[in-house]
Amino acid sequence: MKSEETRKADPAYRLGPNEGMIGRKGGRLLLDTPALVLDLDALERNIAAMASHAKAVGVALRPHAKTHKSAKIARRQVEAGSIGISCATLGEAEVMAAAGLPGVHITSPMVTEPKIARLIKLNRQDHRGLSVAIDHPDNLRALAAAASSSGKRLAVMVDFSAGHNRTGCATPADALSLARAARASPGIELAGLQSYSGHLQHIALRAERRARALAQAGILRDIIRALAQDGIAVPVVSGGGTGTFDLDPEARVFTELQVGSYVFMDVDYLRAMKDGRNAPPFETSLFVQAAVVSVNARDYVTIDAGLKSFATDGPLPEPALGAPPGSRYEFFGDEHGRLFMPEGSPRPGLGARIECVTPHCDPTVNLHDFYHVVRGDTLVDIWPVDARGKR
Amino acid sequence: MKSEETRKADPAYRLGPNEGMIGRKGGRLLLDTPALVLDLDALERNIAAMASHAKAVGVALRPHAKTHKSAKIARRQVEAGSIGISCATLGEAEVMAAAGLPGVHITSPMVTEPKIARLIKLNRQDHRGLSVAIDHPDNLRALAAAASSSGKRLAVMVDFSAGHNRTGCATPADALSLARAARASPGIELAGLQSYSGHLQHIALRAERRARALAQAGILRDIIRALAQDGIAVPVVSGGGTGTFDLDPEARVFTELQVGSYVFMDVDYLRAMKDGRNAPPFETSLFVQAAVVSVNARDYVTIDAGLKSFATDGPLPEPALGAPPGSRYEFFGDEHGRLFMPEGSPRPGLGARIECVTPHCDPTVNLHDFYHVVRGDTLVDIWPVDARGKR
Repeated sequence: MKSEETRKADPAYRLGPNEGMIGRKGGRLLLDTPALVLDLDALERNIAAMASHAKAVGVALRPHAKTHKSAKIARRQVEAGSIGISCATLGEAEVMAAAGLPGVHITSPMVTEPKIARLIKLNRQDHRGLSVAIDHPDNLRALAAAASSSGKRLAVMVDFSAGHNRTGCATPADALSLARAARASPGIELAGLQSYSGHLQHIALRAERRARALAQAGILRDIIRALAQDGIAVPVVSGGGTGTFDLDPEARVFTELQVGSYVFMDVDYLRAMKDGRNAPPFETSLFVQAAVVSVNARDYVTIDAGLKSFATDGPLPEPALGAPPGSRYEFFGDEHGRLFMPEGSPRPGLGARIECVTPHCDPTVNLHDFYHVVRGDTLVDIWPVDARGKR
Repeated sequence: MKSEETRKADPAYRLGPNEGMIGRKGGRLLLDTPALVLDLDALERNIAAMASHAKAVGVALRPHAKTHKSAKIARRQVEAGSIGISCATLGEAEVMAAAGLPGVHITSPMVTEPKIARLIKLNRQDHRGLSVAIDHPDNLRALAAAASSSGKRLAVMVDFSAGHNRTGCATPADALSLARAARASPGIELAGLQSYSGHLQHIALRAERRARALAQAGILRDIIRALAQDGIAVPVVSGGGTGTFDLDPEARVFTELQVGSYVFMDVDYLRAMKDGRNAPPFETSLFVQAAVVSVNARDYVTIDAGLKSFATDGPLPEPALGAPPGSRYEFFGDEHGRLFMPEGSPRPGLGARIECVTPHCDPTVNLHDFYHVVRGDTLVDIWPVDARGKR
């Protein structure tokens, strides 16, 4: 047990203005707002559902930490069977590796000098299977030189752009040639292939998502076949996302899935995946609790969560707990939003709490320092968003 | 002089991956990216220009910290003559007061129990002129009760919505009645009136901005006159923004301006205020430095700054230093953007640095932990975004 003083000095214990609410029982949970709220029961069900799906279809999971940026959530994913954790930034990878998580894979190329220096340092410290995506022979050469001097091999996955074209080799021929070069590079271990079809994740019609996901997988299969003819094995094929979690395994190409958003299920994913009878087996676990701070306007009330509490790149937040049915939210500046209620609905009073389903979850989480972890109406814990802002 | 160990334990000294670059001279500044870059010369010129404008027109300044969330920038504003600092959240106010800044004014009503408890605690600690906006008699009663028990009076400004209707009394009659009630409340000191015409700030035509700003000021003048007839003096009238910085004083109603964005001048404000010959006397001081991380696409290169580095609620970031003239930026996910260059332009190579003028500056700053403060090509300091995420 830590002394109070040690506890206070440890940044992990500075848990924001709601720390004193942990464990309090009775009545509706009224947080100091705006506050990111995580429904732990729903989170656990989502993690279990994805784990059992993966087991059933024979694919491994390396869930994406860019969604949650939390070592505690990553730990729960690994305890449920995930073989590792995907990270979008080196800073996320540093946080996850420092927390002792295995199989940390960085899904974007690290190309600048400062990034390569940090990557090599992390690779020397980490003994649990670090890897990084590459998509260019110049970057491969730089990594090989740095890894060779460090005395420890660096594992890489060749990134194939899969039509998304954000990062990754543009053609199968480029991917083949980069994989061959990686295989031949001193200091480098070719761990596998990566391919993320980001542009397919939010296609609303499941049949279309399926057809396009299978087509992409076919191209990957051809690359793997060509490498096999050279005697180059590809032990890992990593990719996929929440939107294609049940389609990618069908192709029998991916050995693991980099699913992220399934833990939270934001407005965007719920809409895209609710396709007739094909409702996803995941449920919303992430909300923002806000308070009504002004009631003087005729048609709406003003709440204290605006564009510094919700991501603005996707759909709008959806009012839930505390909001009259049929209410809608509009952004109203940095720190405020307005809640329009259907005519005749009771108007929430000053100080009333309103919870909203989050819009695009990844950048929403990135605006908050803490998860307020609840079971029912009890705040059971506060978890820091450990890797928020870490590049 | 602190020991190295004390220095490292102090969170203010954990300055991110670029700490080692401070003071290095020679060559183009190549940061670990993405990194928020603050041009100190431009910042100083902006602060000086606003200070000399305010002096010339006889109005005080209480600049808004919601823009920069930085105690060091606030300190420079006060050193240039500002009488205080405006804050949008209580968390910002706590940070600014703890840094010893005077005249901290909170521009939004604080209505929930946890917020009122923190506010009263801050009011007892602060002896340099804390105040808070109010817009409802119920809130006034709650504040009066809490302040009375605390044994220290709380200064309030009655917020008049001025047609923006985010917070504030909806009618002059409501504002009058709330001001009278505040004057009569034990534990409360009526410090003045606040009125922010947020909806006028970005009107592109100066003549229209002027007409509407003057009309709003007329309504305020009537409220002040009516209060004077009751023998209630209104020593402070606070409001205005960067978009109306030269219009609000003309009405001779405001005693002080809550200008914020002038320190940085983002894409939004530059466009709105460049109205024929009426270019504003402020210049862009805030940029994000990103690096090219993938060059495999035909029509663009991918850079490592996306919607976790730039606000997405306004215009797009504008490519500047390092980008071929005529380049344009598009968002490409959480951590990436793509830079399209005019046909025939040289393509920046892997690792090349591109700086972009920030879109809406307040929420952009809110995504970053540090300002990388430069003079020319030298990183002279790194300043934490102290109040980032503080609610």
